[in-house]
Amino acid sequence: MSKLRVAVLGAKGRIGSEAVRAVEAADDMELVAALGRGDRLETLVEAGAQVAVELTTPASVMGNLDFCLRHGIHAVVGTTGWTDERLTHLRTSLAASPETGVLIAPNFSIGAVLTMKFAVQAARWFESVEVVELHHPNKADAPSGTATRTAQLIAAARAAAGCAPQPDATVTALDGARGADVDGVPVHAVRLRGLLAHQEVLLGGEGETLTIRHDSLHHSSFMPGVLLGVRRVVDTPGLTVGLENYLDLG
Amino acid sequence: MSKLRVAVLGAKGRIGSEAVRAVEAADDMELVAALGRGDRLETLVEAGAQVAVELTTPASVMGNLDFCLRHGIHAVVGTTGWTDERLTHLRTSLAASPETGVLIAPNFSIGAVLTMKFAVQAARWFESVEVVELHHPNKADAPSGTATRTAQLIAAARAAAGCAPQPDATVTALDGARGADVDGVPVHAVRLRGLLAHQEVLLGGEGETLTIRHDSLHHSSFMPGVLLGVRRVVDTPGLTVGLENYLDLG
Amino acid sequence: MSKLRVAVLGAKGRIGSEAVRAVEAADDMELVAALGRGDRLETLVEAGAQVAVELTTPASVMGNLDFCLRHGIHAVVGTTGWTDERLTHLRTSLAASPETGVLIAPNFSIGAVLTMKFAVQAARWFESVEVVELHHPNKADAPSGTATRTAQLIAAARAAAGCAPQPDATVTALDGARGADVDGVPVHAVRLRGLLAHQEVLLGGEGETLTIRHDSLHHSSFMPGVLLGVRRVVDTPGLTVGLENYLDLG
Amino acid sequence: MSKLRVAVLGAKGRIGSEAVRAVEAADDMELVAALGRGDRLETLVEAGAQVAVELTTPASVMGNLDFCLRHGIHAVVGTTGWTDERLTHLRTSLAASPETGVLIAPNFSIGAVLTMKFAVQAARWFESVEVVELHHPNKADAPSGTATRTAQLIAAARAAAGCAPQPDATVTALDGARGADVDGVPVHAVRLRGLLAHQEVLLGGEGETLTIRHDSLHHSSFMPGVLLGVRRVVDTPGLTVGLENYLDLG
Repeated sequence: MSKLRVAVLGAKGRIGSEAVRAVEAADDMELVAALGRGDRLETLVEAGAQVAVELTTPASVMGNLDFCLRHGIHAVVGTTGWTDERLTHLRTSLAASPETGVLIAPNFSIGAVLTMKFAVQAARWFESVEVVELHHPNKADAPSGTATRTAQLIAAARAAAGCAPQPDATVTALDGARGADVDGVPVHAVRLRGLLAHQEVLLGGEGETLTIRHDSLHHSSFMPGVLLGVRRVVDTPGLTVGLENYLDLG
Repeated sequence: MSKLRVAVLGAKGRIGSEAVRAVEAADDMELVAALGRGDRLETLVEAGAQVAVELTTPASVMGNLDFCLRHGIHAVVGTTGWTDERLTHLRTSLAASPETGVLIAPNFSIGAVLTMKFAVQAARWFESVEVVELHHPNKADAPSGTATRTAQLIAAARAAAGCAPQPDATVTALDGARGADVDGVPVHAVRLRGLLAHQEVLLGGEGETLTIRHDSLHHSSFMPGVLLGVRRVVDTPGLTVGLENYLDLG
Repeated sequence: MSKLRVAVLGAKGRIGSEAVRAVEAADDMELVAALGRGDRLETLVEAGAQVAVELTTPASVMGNLDFCLRHGIHAVVGTTGWTDERLTHLRTSLAASPETGVLIAPNFSIGAVLTMKFAVQAARWFESVEVVELHHPNKADAPSGTATRTAQLIAAARAAAGCAPQPDATVTALDGARGADVDGVPVHAVRLRGLLAHQEVLLGGEGETLTIRHDSLHHSSFMPGVLLGVRRVVDTPGLTVGLENYLDLG
Repeated sequence: MSKLRVAVLGAKGRIGSEAVRAVEAADDMELVAALGRGDRLETLVEAGAQVAVELTTPASVMGNLDFCLRHGIHAVVGTTGWTDERLTHLRTSLAASPETGVLIAPNFSIGAVLTMKFAVQAARWFESVEVVELHHPNKADAPSGTATRTAQLIAAARAAAGCAPQPDATVTALDGARGADVDGVPVHAVRLRGLLAHQEVLLGGEGETLTIRHDSLHHSSFMPGVLLGVRRVVDTPGLTVGLENYLDLG
């Protein structure tokens, strides 16, 4: 079987250089281009790239994708900064290149994506749901963006299912003890030397609890998701937002 | 809104008596009959039962269900011992009562059912999967039936997706250290005073792990599943096997 | 070997009645009296009690202990409300009965006592320490008294060892995300249906974490501590405060 | 305050080069020599080293320590291969240099050392104890040496305290389900991509469990223990075996 011809844009960055290594290590892929700031996009065409992994910056991503779509190159995009306006522009460009696929993935960690998905599916079936995230102490925000997003999705799923508010008989509390309130879902942030990035969703019902925990122990954890994106995007024309859509969750 | 009229068969047993209490405590249900061994099934009709919760024995369940189907009474069944032959017989009976619903649930714990479902969905996306179950030390079998079943389903999902065998470089091991091998999935059984019934599915990939854990802390944990079954069976004609089919998992 | 002759005071209460059962079930003890409100203390002497398990109320405990000490009956005390004044009074009474032992235990759960002790010993050796406690949602206070006490002891141990403040680079946080601040130790309180009483102390240093977790799954969990107290108090004259002093922690 | 003058022997190895970095990063230390294979030991004296961190090989360690002791240089030793004969030889050399200290530490991870110590202290107070260790799948032995050692120490502590055998009603089991039997303590080994080195000691009694868990997330985890050893060895003449002796565990 011929190998997928893959290019990496933003190849000099921390994540981009890991992506380069991951593509090189994949049996079914060939790295045909690794572009950094200032390199010519035409290289993608000359190298015969089928898929571009886009890991640059919000300032560069739109131009890069326009180029890819004009040349029928599929794209797997980790760059952030997606507004409704940008998504609309991208959809228009895709309409003119109907066989090309683009995956935008806010999170390439398969474990993180599944944690969020399972938490949302389970949330309506339990009386209580709380989120505990644990990170290294150099992190500037609390809770993490992922934890806040998880809690928002959980709250929305519970609202849609008509769940009652969570039971909580607390009458006297120290400030902060019950965590941050994100749409009615308590979120707790632990900061501990030695940790990287971890998240736990705790769900409780009569006599039982369900815990879904994701541990990211090394920043290489998003590479399997990038490779999965590359393999799938070539058979998935149009725009896909979220890696979960490639996970056959039924 | 009028309340659902519910009967419990096997109402004197340990689980049956909990079911009686749970139905009585539910705002949207009315307990109209609670039958023990030797009580007349006609009571169900006289009491106007819409749903029967069947928690008797393999010796009684077929006769009880035949009676229910003849009278258009939906059934939620926790009794075990289902063979292909019995299922075929039940489907035939249901064909003659096409508006009646029957739910057979080997496990009413929503947490246990979701653990199994999520583990199966996630299993193909990780290189490694192992199961650890933990129970009180009076348990006679190891691993638990639930853990064995979970491992079998995980193995089947991985086989269907064409996953490679799990990596394991072990060359010297003490007997038993790597657990029981269930279709290639290691299963470990812990027996600890103080515990009731707990199960953890650990999935590992490049730089990350996903853990799905179910803790059953009280034997009342299956009651929300029974009540959910009662609410849904009245709108689900025909045979449904497995509570997961009522959980809108998409 | 002759059995220890044990009496229970407060035998009709929830905890007292469990203590009665535990003493009756212990091979090396004989229950010789089980007194409730209004029963005569002289029964203790008539029954030949060697040890009294005191599980009454702050209003009764001092009178009961005075009686015990006058008659050389050792006491294991779970009743709360101990002020410096009361302890001084008790020490004076003990001076007049130098061979009698009294154990006052704010917590009879061996697991809870060890968690606290180990956390305090470990705290100075890690850069970061946080406490997460998890309870059923009917609990009125957050964090639990045990968690607050644990955090205070941890903070004191770190201060005594001259530890630096914990690292925490948080600059933007939702209110409450980082928990309650107890003397510089973050404490998080989770409330979840299905849980009873659980506590986790997380300690983190360069490249590693240590977690000490106590799960109380049934309210019988304090019974082994009561029995241990009974066995040891007969050989431990004078006042002992805290079950940890009986645990041979070296 | 003047800085401690520290040398590293075996400075070119993986662990040695981390030790070099750790000493350089420590405010209270100065790296005065970093010796690899073939470098002259006299450098230690010329550089005025007060403490040598010995991370070489069993073939080199005895000669290196003899040199250090002759010159009054304290030593912190991570090199393995200690027999009774070697220890006797070392004690003789130390007798001739009574103000010099040597620490031999089979494990420099403070978390691992505390886990083992706490597990041993707690073991006699619970009916059930099991060990679960979890490592990356490239590990050749199962269970890990640390887990086996932990189980042996737990078993010895229980035997010394006269504990009854652990309760276990298992009558039908799949081969390996109940783990490896190490002196009566079950030990389970999980191998999972994404993990590094983790160990959990589970203790269970009536209605409660205590869990002591150590997670090593990065191989830098032993560096705080090395630095602690360097700081303490200068005030601890003679031979000390085991970092736990420096942890003021009382």
